[in-house]
Formats: sequence, C-alpha cells, structure tokens
Amino acid sequence: MNIAIYGYGNLGKGVEYSVKQNKDMELFGVFTRRNPDSVKTVTGAKVYKAEEILNYKEKIDVLIICGGSATDLPAMSPMLAENFNIVDSFDTHADIPLHFERVDAAAKKGSTVALISAGWDPGLFSLNRLYASAILPDGKDYTFWGKGVSQGHSDAIRRIDGVIDARQYTCPVDSALERVRGGENPELSTREKHTRLCYVVAEEGADKERIEAEIKNMPKYFADYDTTVNFISLEELERDHKGIPHGGFVIRTGKTGDNNQNNHIIEYSLKLDSNPEFTASVLVAYARAVYKLKNRGDKGCKTVFDIAPADLSVLSAEEIRALML
Amino acid sequence: MNIAIYGYGNLGKGVEYSVKQNKDMELFGVFTRRNPDSVKTVTGAKVYKAEEILNYKEKIDVLIICGGSATDLPAMSPMLAENFNIVDSFDTHADIPLHFERVDAAAKKGSTVALISAGWDPGLFSLNRLYASAILPDGKDYTFWGKGVSQGHSDAIRRIDGVIDARQYTCPVDSALERVRGGENPELSTREKHTRLCYVVAEEGADKERIEAEIKNMPKYFADYDTTVNFISLEELERDHKGIPHGGFVIRTGKTGDNNQNNHIIEYSLKLDSNPEFTASVLVAYARAVYKLKNRGDKGCKTVFDIAPADLSVLSAEEIRALML
Repeated sequence: MNIAIYGYGNLGKGVEYSVKQNKDMELFGVFTRRNPDSVKTVTGAKVYKAEEILNYKEKIDVLIICGGSATDLPAMSPMLAENFNIVDSFDTHADIPLHFERVDAAAKKGSTVALISAGWDPGLFSLNRLYASAILPDGKDYTFWGKGVSQGHSDAIRRIDGVIDARQYTCPVDSALERVRGGENPELSTREKHTRLCYVVAEEGADKERIEAEIKNMPKYFADYDTTVNFISLEELERDHKGIPHGGFVIRTGKTGDNNQNNHIIEYSLKLDSNPEFTASVLVAYARAVYKLKNRGDKGCKTVFDIAPADLSVLSAEEIRALML
Repeated sequence: MNIAIYGYGNLGKGVEYSVKQNKDMELFGVFTRRNPDSVKTVTGAKVYKAEEILNYKEKIDVLIICGGSATDLPAMSPMLAENFNIVDSFDTHADIPLHFERVDAAAKKGSTVALISAGWDPGLFSLNRLYASAILPDGKDYTFWGKGVSQGHSDAIRRIDGVIDARQYTCPVDSALERVRGGENPELSTREKHTRLCYVVAEEGADKERIEAEIKNMPKYFADYDTTVNFISLEELERDHKGIPHGGFVIRTGKTGDNNQNNHIIEYSLKLDSNPEFTASVLVAYARAVYKLKNRGDKGCKTVFDIAPADLSVLSAEEIRALML
C-alpha cells in the first residue's frame, strides 16, 4: 500500500522512519506547504507541494496528516478526507466530537475511510480505558502522564521575559501511583497526581526570582501544580534535554465477587524515548487498518474504538491466531 | 440481553457475579450436567439440566460455556454453537486453530456468532501482543505469568504419594523483568523467566525428602525450573493459600528512528485476586460484543482479534468518544 505524509515536522519524520519498518508499505512521498526544494527528508522520500496533492489522488492509498491539533487538523482533515483515506492524531479531547462529525461528513461524501485521534493519548490509552472499564464495570480508572516533555508548557515558559529557552517535564507522583495500585480508589487532585519540573535558560542578568515566580504562578499551566524550576546553561539544556521522551500509565482497579471482596488491577504503561516517533508508529499501524477497511467497502470517520485489532496486523487472521492468541 | 451459563464451577460462579454488575444484562440461568437440585448458585440464579438446553433456545441471547479446555470445550463449543451464540475460554494454545475451525463450521451452519479463547491469556494478553507488535514491528515481546496459582501444577503435586494437599505458585523472575524493561532484548530460558513455589501438606510420617525430590525432578512440570518446596500444615494451607490469585506481564520493547536509536517500552500487567472471577468478567464483556455482532447479521467463529473495542462497551459510540477517547 502507498502511504503519503502531509505536513513534515517531527511527527512527519517519525512516519517516514516507521513506514520503512513495515514491509507491506511504500512511502509515496511528503507533501509540504513550504518550498519542496527547501525540505530535506530523513530517509530520502520525495517532496511535493501540498497544493498539488489532488494530482496524486490515484497514487495514494492512505494519507497520514501530520499537522497540529490547534489550527492545522481542524481545517486539513475534513478537507483532505473528501479525496483521500486519511489518518490524523487530533488530540484536543474536548473538540473530538465536533472534529469527528466534520470528518465523517467529508469521508461519507467522498466514500473514503478516515481515522482520527490516533496516537497514544488519545489512542492506545483510550483503548485501555475502554477495555478495562468494559471488563471491570465496578471500578475506577486513572491516567498518569510522564515522565515526559510537554511542548505546550515549555513554550509557555519561553514566552516569559528574560527566558532564552526552556524544557518542561510532566512527572507522575510515585506515591499517588502506589495508592492507585494498592486498590485504594483515591480521589486525587491535580496537584496530587503530577508535578512539573522545569529547566530554564535565562538571559544574562535576568531576574531569576521574578522568572521563577512567573512560572510557578502561571494560571492553568503551573499554578495548580508543585513546580520545580532549575536554571541551567544553554550548553546543559542542549546536552541533557534534547530528547522528546514521554510516557505514562493507565490503571484501572475494580472489584468482583461476593461482597466485592476480590480486587483486580489492570495496568498499561508506556516509556518512550521519542514521543513523535512512537506516535508516528501508531498512525502507521492504523493506516494499514484504514486501507483494509476501504478495501472492504467501508467509509466514514472511525476512531481506534472502531478498529478490530486484527486489522492493524500485517499477518493473516490464521497467522495471528496461531502465533499470538 | 439474556445470558446463560453452561457448566458451573469457579468460572461459572464468576460469570454469575459478573452479569450482576452489567446493567444491560439479565442472567437467564445456569445449565449443569449434575442434578439441578444439588446445585446452589451464588446469587440465586435458576438451575437447569444441561441436556434440556435446546428447549430454551429462544430465551438465551448468549451462552457462556464454562467448561475445561482439556475435554469439555472441544466437545461442547462446536455442539452448542450450532444453536446458540456462545463465548468460551478455550486455552490450549496449540489446539486453537483446530478448535476455531470446528466452532466456525458449527456457527456458520447455525447462523450464530461464537467467540472462542476469551479470558486474559489467551485474551487480553493476546490483544496486547498484537497491538504492540503492530506498532513496534522492530521489537520483541515477552510474556511473564504470576505471581499466581497454577491449578495443573498443584494437581500434579497432589498425585505424589504421601501428599495430602498442595498449592503451587508460578512467579516471574524480577531480574528477568528488569532486563526486559531495560530494553536489553535478552534471550531468556524457561528457568530464567519463572520460578515455582510449592506449599505442600504431607501425611504424618511421610518421607519429605523423597516428596521434595519427586516434585523437583518431575519432567515438564518442575524439572526445568528453580523450584522451592515448603512443607506446611493443613491449617496453614487453608488459612494462607485459599485464594486463586494470578496475573502477569506482557512487555514489548522496540526501536524507531534514524539508526534505531530510540527505544520504547509497552507494558501491560494484571494483578488479580481471583483468576476465575476476572476471567469470567472478560467472558461477559465479550458476550456483549457477540450479541451486538449477531444483531448486525454477522455469523461464524471470532476471537478477541476480530472484535472492535467499542463492541465491548455498554456505552454508545458517541459516549465513548466523548468520555474515553
């Protein structure tokens, strides 16, 4: 199957690497809004102008849209779904129902298959919330994120006067994780679940106390958390904080039996060296499922909840039953 | 939907408890090969004779077959799938392809939906092996079981001369788990992955040294493992080892990126106070999916790989997108 990438940042590069690992896929190329001559792809994929994509409609089986959720995907996914089978990673949780509706209308109009909100959260974590809650209805689930870099929080620090660069890590609170695993079913406040750890490069002579106070009191981003601010040099930032790791935990505890005396813990966790490369790998696996659905005559918008696991695999139904069941 | 239970041991009792937790389900009753008057159900479900089940064909939406994999299910599932939508927990991994074929033929003949090999392994662990391998094709996965009671190994000890009762726990080796989580991709022998811990009640005057040697040298069951044998009193066994806990881990580590320099770890784990009650909860969730598939006009044999996650949930597609994605 022929895969194309629309949008070429870290996520698009991750998709380019991932397609190489999947023997049943070919990478048709990358579509960019920049000047194609200015874009050098990581494995040598061809680069095309985004506005010319309709010329290649017959050559692309699935288009993986690698744009941001704030402004790119709400416009791109409905527009492209009318002509292409698409996968996106739309992750603004509150806006998913509206995004679904718009993409669904476009995909039904164009008789294409579109899968939105793939990745790990939304995505694999959502799947685990669903499976675990269906199996243990008398229970409670918890999602913890980290330790990992939050791009949005890092950007918020960078906008403070006197800051040259910054990296923010979201960290789960170990004692909260342990209480959940212990089956206590605790009610946890925002502050009790995660801490925020910041590495900040300040301009020479900048008022570090003022910067630290501005970070710690920033509403929504930091004020509700225990936040630690470390000032480091630009060299240290580039040496020690260049990666984009992330991860997290979905845990459900639930009870069964006479008087609910038996406790069960289902835990799913990810520890990722590269958030964008892992997210890309999820998008690519779902591109395979989209291709299979399209070939079966399906159409419309889907989410990870609608995809039978077998459709993610390169193996046949007989092979997965024999090898993995 | 109306659920019925066929076979009434620990697993059947677990299904009875689980159905009570699911508001969209009613328990029609329990079918047993014993004299119905001799069977007292844990929540008061009605008891019927197994041989009269065809009389109730129109009243049962899904039949959950709670028999053993050695001799019960290979006969029961194909026989019953011709007249009922069924779920079973067939767990003899090597025989799954044959069981699938036989149940599939019966279900297609009767236009029913049958789901085999549900539970946690096969079942949830299989799902996690599939998802993780589809997402990280350049990786390796590991399944560890325990700490938990193995009924088969406990029975094997009980057959030794001079043994009154016994309980065997399968335990994952922590250092092996840590090597896997560390991304080492180790090759692990049987002995390196699990140990076996035995609690044995011996007859008065029995030769404990001989019993211990017989256990440790038993081919297949114990000889390939580091086995610890503890002799305890019957009172201790009943006080400390009455439960049927189990659990385990599915871990996949995989690489992505330029030169595969980024490592990712996907880990799924279960810690279960009651193996049969948790397994039963999985069967009941899949009974809901079977019911939905049947109502959509589907037929034939399925496994967990074929079921879209949404079909396990009591919630609507809109609700799960809004609440869980």
